[in-house]
Parts: sequence; structure tokens; C-alpha cells
Amino acid sequence: MDWGKIAQQRLNEIAKCSLPSAGVTRFPFTKEHELAIGVIKGWMEQANLSVSMDAAGTLIGQTQGSPEARTFLIGSHQDSVRDGGRYDGIMGIVLGCLALEKLKTEGINLPFTVEVLAFADEEGVRFPTALMGPRSLAGTFDPKDLDLKDRDGVSLRNALAEFGGKPEKLLALKRKSQNILGYLEVHIEQGPILENQNSALGVVSGICGIERHEVTFVGETGHAGTVPMSSRRDALLAASEFIVAVNHNAMMQEQVRTTVGSLQLWPDIVNAIPDKVALTLEIRALDDQQRREVQSKAQNLISIVSQKYDVSGTIKCTYSQPAVLCDEGLSLSLKAATLNYCSNTLNLPSGATHDASAMADLCPIAMLFVRCKEGRSHTPLESVTEEDMAASINTVADFLKGFQGQLVR
Amino acid sequence: MDWGKIAQQRLNEIAKCSLPSAGVTRFPFTKEHELAIGVIKGWMEQANLSVSMDAAGTLIGQTQGSPEARTFLIGSHQDSVRDGGRYDGIMGIVLGCLALEKLKTEGINLPFTVEVLAFADEEGVRFPTALMGPRSLAGTFDPKDLDLKDRDGVSLRNALAEFGGKPEKLLALKRKSQNILGYLEVHIEQGPILENQNSALGVVSGICGIERHEVTFVGETGHAGTVPMSSRRDALLAASEFIVAVNHNAMMQEQVRTTVGSLQLWPDIVNAIPDKVALTLEIRALDDQQRREVQSKAQNLISIVSQKYDVSGTIKCTYSQPAVLCDEGLSLSLKAATLNYCSNTLNLPSGATHDASAMADLCPIAMLFVRCKEGRSHTPLESVTEEDMAASINTVADFLKGFQGQLVR
Repeated sequence: MDWGKIAQQRLNEIAKCSLPSAGVTRFPFTKEHELAIGVIKGWMEQANLSVSMDAAGTLIGQTQGSPEARTFLIGSHQDSVRDGGRYDGIMGIVLGCLALEKLKTEGINLPFTVEVLAFADEEGVRFPTALMGPRSLAGTFDPKDLDLKDRDGVSLRNALAEFGGKPEKLLALKRKSQNILGYLEVHIEQGPILENQNSALGVVSGICGIERHEVTFVGETGHAGTVPMSSRRDALLAASEFIVAVNHNAMMQEQVRTTVGSLQLWPDIVNAIPDKVALTLEIRALDDQQRREVQSKAQNLISIVSQKYDVSGTIKCTYSQPAVLCDEGLSLSLKAATLNYCSNTLNLPSGATHDASAMADLCPIAMLFVRCKEGRSHTPLESVTEEDMAASINTVADFLKGFQGQLVR
Repeated sequence: MDWGKIAQQRLNEIAKCSLPSAGVTRFPFTKEHELAIGVIKGWMEQANLSVSMDAAGTLIGQTQGSPEARTFLIGSHQDSVRDGGRYDGIMGIVLGCLALEKLKTEGINLPFTVEVLAFADEEGVRFPTALMGPRSLAGTFDPKDLDLKDRDGVSLRNALAEFGGKPEKLLALKRKSQNILGYLEVHIEQGPILENQNSALGVVSGICGIERHEVTFVGETGHAGTVPMSSRRDALLAASEFIVAVNHNAMMQEQVRTTVGSLQLWPDIVNAIPDKVALTLEIRALDDQQRREVQSKAQNLISIVSQKYDVSGTIKCTYSQPAVLCDEGLSLSLKAATLNYCSNTLNLPSGATHDASAMADLCPIAMLFVRCKEGRSHTPLESVTEEDMAASINTVADFLKGFQGQLVR
């Protein structure tokens, strides 16, 4: 069987479950999601899995084993961003199903249950929240989130119920940790490191912590023609010097990423000095302590440029999420499983968040990154080779077989 | 007579001819403009001027002299920006009328005609054009501008006709240069220089040339978590370094002002690297050659930062207006006239454009700047003292008397 080719065919097929758009646009609890679930159900059944949907809208395919057996979870998300690619999220579901189908064709029966989980919503595009599926399993979902609404005013609660989920039963989804052996997620890297290093696969060391800040500079506006340069209190000039400095600081460090992604200024007209700039600063690092140091350095830089340009600068944290480390044992087994299919598997952190971040509250996690072309993601240009997908399927199948061995040992 | 106090009372009175707003909001060819014209007519009549409105909606108050006499013009604009102050523009009309009223009370008959001109539209807020009044007098008005529309879809042509102007007769307004002795405009400085130098009055050396550019940086977007700092092509980082450099360059030069007043970025979200930034760069200088050098330096800086951050940078000129010098003879006479009322009159360029810029195409011009509090303008906080206004009225009256002397000589 050419598993990579089948994976690509499946990804092409399910890419059609999309709103009309340049790329894939599939939001949770929509008609497109429903169509996708029908397709995924077929894949799961082809791997001999029994299929059900849980109260959070997660589609679950389960190997037929003893009901008392402990369970290993393989998961990813079915949804996409607007005009996204064919791989982000959904590829992890395809490869998980195919790994189990491969084991079936090999006649292998695992002494533990495996579930493939197709989560509804990881991207958080439709509702201002995400990860309801894995958080429900981990018991960390906040039911208040059910009241959050999409831009049409539909609440998450109603969207879920309409879709066949059971908002009132989310708390009951919490799994018992002692029953869960671990969680594995296969995902495109979404970055250029594997490609740059000529490596098909990467074992993820952990998922970076994230903090987001709103940084504001307030100076004084004035007429662009009448206020001499030396009398100005230009908020955009201060913000610009801050942006340069905070980027240069991050460039000098390993494994830290800072991004100023959004910026607004006032009055924002050609012939007036800007008196206010608000920008977002995002900091990501695998080491929480290092992340805090970068934040503290940023705060320092704000003070310095504010003083220099006679403006006032403030920083306010709007979001913060600690780093999550992958399980060392699972990661070692995973890396070992790659070695028949990839000569130079890398270890690397994940700068992006994944369903695995939420699953870490339930059980040990591991993640396998697959090389993607030019590191592109969240665009129709996302691309993964059939060869690399085949290597991933074989890796997951071998990992499960090896995990069987660990259980026996 | 306490001329400064009368000026303040008049400015307070006409400030009521405004849309409901925090400051003064008076756009051309509106009900508020019509109310204002009624008030100004009263001021003109009190100075013994005969009043008429020309085809462009300019209210004209003329001294009663021999019809063959040559004419000296004193002008400014009646309109304001949205939520503007009580002084910008309208103060020049008030002070012009009061200077002539003062000469009347002194029983002085000038051997030339004086006209006070209350132009309709200098701010260009309602229509995407301005200066129709002075341009018509100078013969530089482009009739195509009559088709320009306000945001309600009303054309300048219809607005003017509705107001009692005569769009079809604008070209006939052109004055003969040989009949015009000169043009004087009194205006608040709109900047902090006079206040900083403890000077009530300034004689304007010229009106700065202006060029405006759209500067664009295009890099590559990517996930804020997955793209390493060293692989980024961040358009905002390049733009920021450019903004800092172009400002520092201007700070090192005399009499140049550069402003980045407006900026937009894409995709403008917290967790994506910006791949495109478009910003406006405005350059003002009294010396056109110096202005061109600053533009060329900016172009250089764009190349340097584009190369440094692996982005592409472009600059496109969107507007350009050469500098206009004030007449040396008129300015010397004006300065001499200030000296009884201001011990340390400054000479300074005007960074802002004025009706005088357009009048320079017709005749020699001169401008008198009046100190305003903290350099504030285009805000309800605009403020000028009664003493400084009195000094201006006396200066204009003495200037006209002195000009009489020049004619005789």
C-alpha cells in the first residue's frame, strides 16, 4: 500500500468540505464540519474503528478491544482558519487513521485501546475560544465559554447543541488519568526548521509558553508643518524604536520569539504627529523563566524609549499560557520509531499551540512534526510530500507497536 | 478702544456659527458658513467697508476710495476643521477688519483701496480640494475641481451655487496683477516657536514646500510562534527602523520637518508576522533643494533597511507643492510696523499652508504670525491673548499707514 498517496487523496477529498474560498475554510459546528465528519467516519471505519461523537462534538474512532484496557489517544483538529491549507490539523487525523489501518492490514492487535480523536475547534476562528474538545477530556473546560458568541450572535452552546453535541454533558467527558496511557499528535511543523535542516520529521520537545501584551505609547499630536522636530512627542517614533529594539533583543537569544503583529495609531492622518500608538507584543519561549526575562527586558525598553521621546509608555498583559513539556519517555520512543524512516530526526520546540497543550492536563503527551514546504501554514500554499506523510504513518504504527512492547516490559 | 478685547468678543461670537461640537466646526457653503458671513458683514460695515460676495463665495469688504486706485488685500479663511479652535483662519479676518476700523477712528484715508477677504475654504475638510477663493483671484483655479464631491455626494459646483456663488463665473474673478499692491495675512502660528522665544509676533519668511509619499514595505507573513527570528522578513520591523532613521535625519537638520503620520499593516493580527506596511511620509522645508535632498536620503534609507531585513521597499510621491517665499520689501515693512508693539519680532518660516500660498501667484505676499498658547491648533484648546491680538491690529494699521508712505515716496 502507498500510504502517503492514500493520505494525499484523503486530504484532497476532505479539502472540499469547505466554504467557497481560495483555500480550505472549515469552521466548527457548520455544514462543512458535518460533511467532514461524514468523511472522517468513513476513514475510521476503514481502520476497523467504532465511531461515535462525544458531547463536545469530537468524533472518536476506537479500536475494538477489551473495555477494561487502558487507552492511548491520537488526536488533532478538523477545523481550519479562513483560506487555510489542506494539512494543518486534519493531516493528523488522516495519518492516525492510516497508521491504525496499516496495523490492521498487518494483523496486529494491540493490547490496549487506541482512540483517534477528531477535535472540532482548535483554531478559534469562529468563537473567541478554542480547544473545548481536549479541555473537556482533561476537565479544564470552563462552561462559561458556552455563552461566547460568533459574529452572527450564535452562542457556542446553541451551535454545539444544533450540531448534535450536548452542552450540558461536557463536564461528564472528563477522563480518568489512570485510564489514559498517553496522547500523540501529528502536525505539520508550520515553520521552516525541518526543511532548512533537510529533515522529514521532528520530535517536539514542548509547546512554547505564550504571553501577549498591549503596549501603548502616548505623546502629543501637532501639525506636521508647524511643530519643530525638537519639540515633538511623537508616539509612533517611540513605538518604532521599541519595535526595533525588542526584535533585536529576541534575535540575540536562542529559542525566543517576539512579534509585534498588530498596531494602531491616532490620529492616523498624513499631516499630524501621532499622539497615540497601541501595539501587540507576543512573546513565546519553551522556558517560562526565559519568557519572563524577555518580558522584563521589553518593559525596560519601553521605559527607555518613553524617556528618550518624552512620551508615556505602558505594557499590559492580555493573555498568558505557560509552556508545556512533552513526556520524555514517549518522546524517546517516538524518536526511535522515526529512525527507520528518517535519518536525521530533529528535536525542536513547538512555537504554535496545539490540542496537545490542553491534553497535557490529562496525560503524558508527545508530538510529531512533519516537514512542510517553505514553512508555510494557514495559507492555500501549505504543502507536505506524500513521502513525508508515509514516513509519519509508518512512524506512528511502529510507535504503537513499540509502545506495546513497553507495556509488556 | 481696547482692540484686543473687541477681537476676543468677536471671535467668541462667531465661534457660535458652528455645528454642535466640542470646538468650532464650520465647513464651507453650509448653514454655519451663511451665519458666519452675516456676522462678518457686520464687522466690515462697522469699519466702513462696502460688502459683497464674489462668485467663489469669498466675502469682500472694500474701503470706499477712488475706483481707479490700486488695491491692497488682507485675507484669511472663515472655515475650520472639525472640532477646531476659535482662532485658526477667522482671527485674520477679525484683525483685518479691526485694523481698518482703527484707521477709520483715527480719521485716516489711505491713498489706495484695501479689501478684506474672508475666504470660504482653506482647510479642505468638506471637499477634497481647497483654496478655490484665492486661486480664482490668482487665475489658477482648475474648474474640474467643481465636480469634486463631499461625503454626501454634493458636488462643489452645486454647493457653491446653492450658497449664492456662481460656479460659471469663477474664471472671471482673476485679478490683474498690476492692480494689486500686495496681500497680507495674519494667522496664529500653529506652532510653539514664538511662545518658546517669548515673542508675540513673527514675520513669515515663506511657506514651506510640501511633498507627501506613500512608502511600502513588503516582506513575508508567517506564524508568530513557528518562524524563527532569523528566518523572518518582517515588514513592520523594516518600517520601524525606517521611521526611526528618517526622523533622526530630520532632527539633524535646520528647518526640515518629516512626519510619518499614518500607517497601516497587514495582516494586523497578534500572532502573525506583518508582511506589508504602508505608511505616509511628509517632508516640509522652506528650501526646495533641501526638501529634495531629504527625499533622496529617505529613498536611501528605504533601500538600506529593505536589504537588511530582506523585504522590498518602495516610495511613491502622492503630492508635491513648492515653497513660496514672502516678499522681502513687504516683510521688512511689516517687521518695522511690529516694533512698537513687540520688542523681539521673529522671522520664521510657515510649516503650514495658507491662503497666502495661492495668493503668491497673483501678487507679493506677507504674513504675520501671532503667538498661540503651547503651539496648539486644530483643537478647542487653541488660545491667543487679547494683548497679542491688539499688537497685531496695531501692527496691521501701522503697516498700512507705512505702506501709504512707501507709495508717496
